[in-house]
Amino acid sequence: MAGFVGVHLGAGSHSCNLQEKKEQLCRKACRKGIDILMNEGTSLDAVAAVTQILENSALTNAGYGSNLTLDGRVECDASVMDGSNLQFGACGAVTRVKNPVLLAQTLCKKQLEPLSLGRMQPCLLVGPGASEWASSNGLPLIDENALISERALKQYNHYKKRIEKYNIRLTQGDVRMDTVGSICIDKYGHIAASSSSGGIALKPPGRVGQAAIFGGGCWAEDGQRENGIPGVAVSTSGCGEHIIKTFLAKESARALQSTNCPTAAIYKTINDCFLKSPFLHDVTDKLCGVIALQDRMEGAGVEFLWAHTTNSICVGYMSTKHSKPHTRISRLASGRTQGSSIVVEGVYC
Amino acid sequence: MAGFVGVHLGAGSHSCNLQEKKEQLCRKACRKGIDILMNEGTSLDAVAAVTQILENSALTNAGYGSNLTLDGRVECDASVMDGSNLQFGACGAVTRVKNPVLLAQTLCKKQLEPLSLGRMQPCLLVGPGASEWASSNGLPLIDENALISERALKQYNHYKKRIEKYNIRLTQGDVRMDTVGSICIDKYGHIAASSSSGGIALKPPGRVGQAAIFGGGCWAEDGQRENGIPGVAVSTSGCGEHIIKTFLAKESARALQSTNCPTAAIYKTINDCFLKSPFLHDVTDKLCGVIALQDRMEGAGVEFLWAHTTNSICVGYMSTKHSKPHTRISRLASGRTQGSSIVVEGVYC
Repeated sequence: MAGFVGVHLGAGSHSCNLQEKKEQLCRKACRKGIDILMNEGTSLDAVAAVTQILENSALTNAGYGSNLTLDGRVECDASVMDGSNLQFGACGAVTRVKNPVLLAQTLCKKQLEPLSLGRMQPCLLVGPGASEWASSNGLPLIDENALISERALKQYNHYKKRIEKYNIRLTQGDVRMDTVGSICIDKYGHIAASSSSGGIALKPPGRVGQAAIFGGGCWAEDGQRENGIPGVAVSTSGCGEHIIKTFLAKESARALQSTNCPTAAIYKTINDCFLKSPFLHDVTDKLCGVIALQDRMEGAGVEFLWAHTTNSICVGYMSTKHSKPHTRISRLASGRTQGSSIVVEGVYC
Repeated sequence: MAGFVGVHLGAGSHSCNLQEKKEQLCRKACRKGIDILMNEGTSLDAVAAVTQILENSALTNAGYGSNLTLDGRVECDASVMDGSNLQFGACGAVTRVKNPVLLAQTLCKKQLEPLSLGRMQPCLLVGPGASEWASSNGLPLIDENALISERALKQYNHYKKRIEKYNIRLTQGDVRMDTVGSICIDKYGHIAASSSSGGIALKPPGRVGQAAIFGGGCWAEDGQRENGIPGVAVSTSGCGEHIIKTFLAKESARALQSTNCPTAAIYKTINDCFLKSPFLHDVTDKLCGVIALQDRMEGAGVEFLWAHTTNSICVGYMSTKHSKPHTRISRLASGRTQGSSIVVEGVYC
């Protein structure tokens, strides 16, 4: 079968003036993923490398360029899931790690190595312990200020001043929540997914969002040909607390496993399990975005979908059959309300 | 209706020589919870106060007396869930907070207060940020060595030496994994649950276990009389990574919401969603424990259950109708194998 890479730069409000740069970034990330898949790399390697490119760009709220915490620092969340063995690795509120997704990937791979004393390999590491673990597992630590982009610092100063001077209440749509992520399938049908985020601007230090949480940020399960269960992958974006409380990645994946109509499954999941969730009954704006993959193992291609309740989502995708990546910024139709309307789009490729 | 408190000191291997002391601790905790419920306290207040007593005892692996990390420190996880509004608060790998459950409770209550700039109140705080937040929200920080008990230090030195000198591989059953927790219902039918843990002995610093994770450590949902859905609460114990990957608290609660036979529901959940989970296919010993409550709102009492796949679980419970608390150490029957056999017991009271 063909290999496939899908990426997103987060669900939020993508301004038109950065559109070309963002689409370019999506293309670069997709090409990297396809390169890996064409050279016998695994889907886990591909999602990590793809996400690393997104983290290294100042255009995204992940890795370099992350939103700053209330005390002006960068703390990142990231996770990966390997659909071939259902292992998961994640880090939360981690500092000084240039690419949090590589830490998550290393944790995910380590799950397969037993530890003495019956201890488990951790699946979630946070804070200074996560940085130390990264360092002792071969990932270099960098100066924490090296992750602060000019744009993030400018936005931080702007909002900090507004909060302090005017105690102003802005709406969610004003702040960047653009968690990034990717999903990949290799030619053997093995699937992986990733999620990476700098979190909400001016978040309290130590806050962990969905990008680090099992069932929240990403999900991947290989298909089971013998049972007719399709392979699935999901990466989410939006308000972390709300996505954690609705298990959005897992719920989307479960829905995709039991349907021939992935578009309807994603719509129904966002509607029933997110917009109408009793866990968000007191929330006005319910903001999320999802990219998803369904592999029914019946042809050479996969279904790739993107959906959002935010104003927009920026996605890219490429198959090993394609000569170049495709990108799309999907926007709510005019007149539709952010936080309560759903857009779902998809392609078969 | 009557109020009710259930507690557990964790699923593990409870030696007979500490049995009386542990049961005494359960009784003390239950009495505290009932006192609060009799004095118009909420079920959320009750689970926090009950768990605080468990954390303050050197007999448990939570708060004071927690297992030490690989570098000899105490890092705690805790969470609470309020079934009346479905809010959740949690902290992970937190140091210097005497009672992590009080931090979780404060975070849970704060969910109801909006923040400026459209920021969310965090539901999960970790590491140094969590300690700072605790301090600025009125919870005193203590010297981190004040949480190290003599017993925990002795065990740490013992195992550290064995790991270093002999690189020995012990089985899970040898190390303490006894996360504690409680579930309460007040006379208005409002339900709350808690979970608190020092984690696995010699865990890597920064490791977060199920006691901090939504859907893993605890779950609480008030009943919906109009839909005939019973109120439910769950608190779990066992291997954190495995409980996270199987959403054990949430899955148990979901099963209890749709049955008239809670014993069968808990048995089936542990069997189907834990022992037979594809996410634990490579795990030999599958260790968990659960306490659960089901309120069918049809009489004055509730069903209270405890279950385990470990050698034993130590539980206590008391209703406002009781004159004194009850305790029970449930053990696997001889000949049954830890990690693959299930015991479920329960009472109606």
